[in-house]
Amino acid sequence: MTAYTATVTVRLKHGVLDPEAETTKRALERLDFELEALRSADRFEVDLEADSADDARERADEMAERLLANPTIHDYDVEVAER
Amino acid sequence: MTAYTATVTVRLKHGVLDPEAETTKRALERLDFELEALRSADRFEVDLEADSADDARERADEMAERLLANPTIHDYDVEVAER
Repeated sequence: MTAYTATVTVRLKHGVLDPEAETTKRALERLDFELEALRSADRFEVDLEADSADDARERADEMAERLLANPTIHDYDVEVAER
Repeated sequence: MTAYTATVTVRLKHGVLDPEAETTKRALERLDFELEALRSADRFEVDLEADSADDARERADEMAERLLANPTIHDYDVEVAER
């Protein structure tokens, strides 16, 4: 077994409204920052032991499917690195 | 001016309690996943126009300092990519 960190990034799907990001963008503009767009995402870093990087990725993928992301409104991606 | 996307990742500092991550970890364990630790972070993707990648990074850095992160409890890092 090897120690891995799987990073799961969960984003809203294109077209899903993100009022929090919109508010953050306006707050930055009020502070005189110039920006065109702002998107927010959640990032989960999961430490786990697995037989291989592929195994770690598969388990992190299943965690995203079952709990971390809502497939109706979210896209996600998984990156795996040895720890 | 070139179009850049600056990605700001905001994490809790080591030692700051993260009850949301703890709850998520337990929920995964109840679903029979095995994991050692889980950390959550916020990720902001900011689209902006800047003269150079360094300029884009500097502005994203200032956004983090002034609004996106709370220096008392958060660490952050900034990555810049051309869009």
